[in-house]
Amino acid sequence: MHLVDTLARISPPDASAQAEARARQAQLTKPAGSLGVLEDVSVQLAGIAGTCPPPVPSRPVVVVFAGDHGVLAQGVSPWPAEVTLGMVENFRAGGAAVNVLARSCGAEVVVVDVGVAAPVEADAVVWDRNVRRATADLRVGPALTRDEAVRAVEVGIAVATELVARGHDLLLTGDMGIGNTTPAACLVAALTGAAPADVTGRGTGVDDATLALKTEVVADAVGRLATPLDGALDPLDVLAEVGGLEHAALAGFVLGGAAAGVPVLLDGFIAGSAALVAQALSPGVTAYCLAGHRSAERGHAVALEHLGLRALVDLDLRLGEGSGAALAFPLVRSAALVLDEMATFDAAGVARKDS
Amino acid sequence: MHLVDTLARISPPDASAQAEARARQAQLTKPAGSLGVLEDVSVQLAGIAGTCPPPVPSRPVVVVFAGDHGVLAQGVSPWPAEVTLGMVENFRAGGAAVNVLARSCGAEVVVVDVGVAAPVEADAVVWDRNVRRATADLRVGPALTRDEAVRAVEVGIAVATELVARGHDLLLTGDMGIGNTTPAACLVAALTGAAPADVTGRGTGVDDATLALKTEVVADAVGRLATPLDGALDPLDVLAEVGGLEHAALAGFVLGGAAAGVPVLLDGFIAGSAALVAQALSPGVTAYCLAGHRSAERGHAVALEHLGLRALVDLDLRLGEGSGAALAFPLVRSAALVLDEMATFDAAGVARKDS
Repeated sequence: MHLVDTLARISPPDASAQAEARARQAQLTKPAGSLGVLEDVSVQLAGIAGTCPPPVPSRPVVVVFAGDHGVLAQGVSPWPAEVTLGMVENFRAGGAAVNVLARSCGAEVVVVDVGVAAPVEADAVVWDRNVRRATADLRVGPALTRDEAVRAVEVGIAVATELVARGHDLLLTGDMGIGNTTPAACLVAALTGAAPADVTGRGTGVDDATLALKTEVVADAVGRLATPLDGALDPLDVLAEVGGLEHAALAGFVLGGAAAGVPVLLDGFIAGSAALVAQALSPGVTAYCLAGHRSAERGHAVALEHLGLRALVDLDLRLGEGSGAALAFPLVRSAALVLDEMATFDAAGVARKDS
Repeated sequence: MHLVDTLARISPPDASAQAEARARQAQLTKPAGSLGVLEDVSVQLAGIAGTCPPPVPSRPVVVVFAGDHGVLAQGVSPWPAEVTLGMVENFRAGGAAVNVLARSCGAEVVVVDVGVAAPVEADAVVWDRNVRRATADLRVGPALTRDEAVRAVEVGIAVATELVARGHDLLLTGDMGIGNTTPAACLVAALTGAAPADVTGRGTGVDDATLALKTEVVADAVGRLATPLDGALDPLDVLAEVGGLEHAALAGFVLGGAAAGVPVLLDGFIAGSAALVAQALSPGVTAYCLAGHRSAERGHAVALEHLGLRALVDLDLRLGEGSGAALAFPLVRSAALVLDEMATFDAAGVARKDS
């Protein structure tokens, strides 16, 4: 599916199903509003499904988009690039955090090589959709050509489309890429207008000197993006100039999920930065997004605010891989179950509040 | 089991199992500390179990302690007292929020009538442990006699002991009692020293006038508790003077779980107030407690701070019943699974961070 066709297919959620869900929440045997954010999630799911109660998500899939980053040459991470490939093999073998957390909530894991530097063996778990073997160093020039950025976005769209066609009813985002918090910080700065220092964090755990260097790298890269006269940067230009291949694919994955009418449960900082790209391409896409968690990485709060999303889990996680999304899945499922299974006051014969 | 024997059986968690869990977290294929609070939970579970990795909790049970409140005569809630019994029947039929959320996470639900005003039919789900048919009005005098308070605490201990004997490996707290946020606010004020206005909230949804009245009721009740010369109120006196039967039973349930060496996953405000009583009786009991969620009810944050617990879920819930604990259970289970199932760097052959 081409990007332009996908954008054309994203429509607003069903307002009448949302209204029906709100009304039903008020009939359930509990004080009105007492399930807080879960009630909002149930309304969102009803709007996306176009029916109330919405179907309970039962076939979640976590997709881990993997890529490498030329900017690693600047020394922005203490981890060597080969860890990206090492972790892809760990995902394949089922030993990483996201594997454990996905098993725990009944989600399948798919790994998509969209930009790993070294050749990756493909199988049913690890899909070869490589667009380019790592980005160029974004400090010294564009990370990608615009054509590569679009192709990576379309990888994400195609993967979402295929997984929905296979029957998956909730898409969870994941990522792997040593160095990928640097392009994420660039994307958040460029697309929200935040200062580089406010969106650049310690990633997997860098020291003060590396953090200072990383912030300079982000400032240099974002500084190359000349703001046009109308103030709006082209999101694909931003992606090409300062992004990453997994970020691009994740943006497409979000768009593809929304175009297919399926909710997308976002992981942390990398997902948030990619969702900002998706939002810039199609502002209505956020109606299909749920924020799985709020990362300890400082730029994530900035991204969530710009997306208008409230995180479901807030436990100082900063792992990525889709771990925060997988942890949040039971909360999303519970929100749908409550709307579907709880008794109403009338059915249970419970007296109501004196009004 | 008598209260004094139970207190004598509560021992500190195993420090060497905790240290082993910390060390193992550092060997798993992720940046150190990147699973945030989940790592802390895994260490706590190891300490409680006395082994690393700790067994993954697989037989959770939510116990909903139900009671009524004489203070309802003051007009502190817009809900009629018969809703307590109505909701007990709703729990029995499986239609309440806690039933849905417990089914969702594989937890059993047990309802314990410790103080419902009307007779309740007993069966395998609803247990008759009634100590007294509702408390007296705590604004005008003691809610309970000291003997009744102790008996209700011992109901909680006995229920915890019996459920652990049946093989349950994680105890979740729940509560039902129209009017029960008023005694909870009293307990939090009395045991933390907070001002009544800072711990009295809107409960199931009271208006401004009722909130003002409720705050006065709390101030009047707590004002009767004369602080002794050494500054420490007797927690059983506090419970008798301003508490509730389900609060007392919950305090015992927490103590009973700890004495049996089983973690207790607390629900919201009512559970927090009861845990403060347990903590006052046995300061080390909090090592066995996990805070399932942070309630929208304002006094809960005060209670959590005094308990030294960080809530796992924070989604503006204010329902009670055990709903927040049930929502948090998958997070606790995930914390244990990660420690048990994740690959180590050495086993996965993944390169490490340059140090």
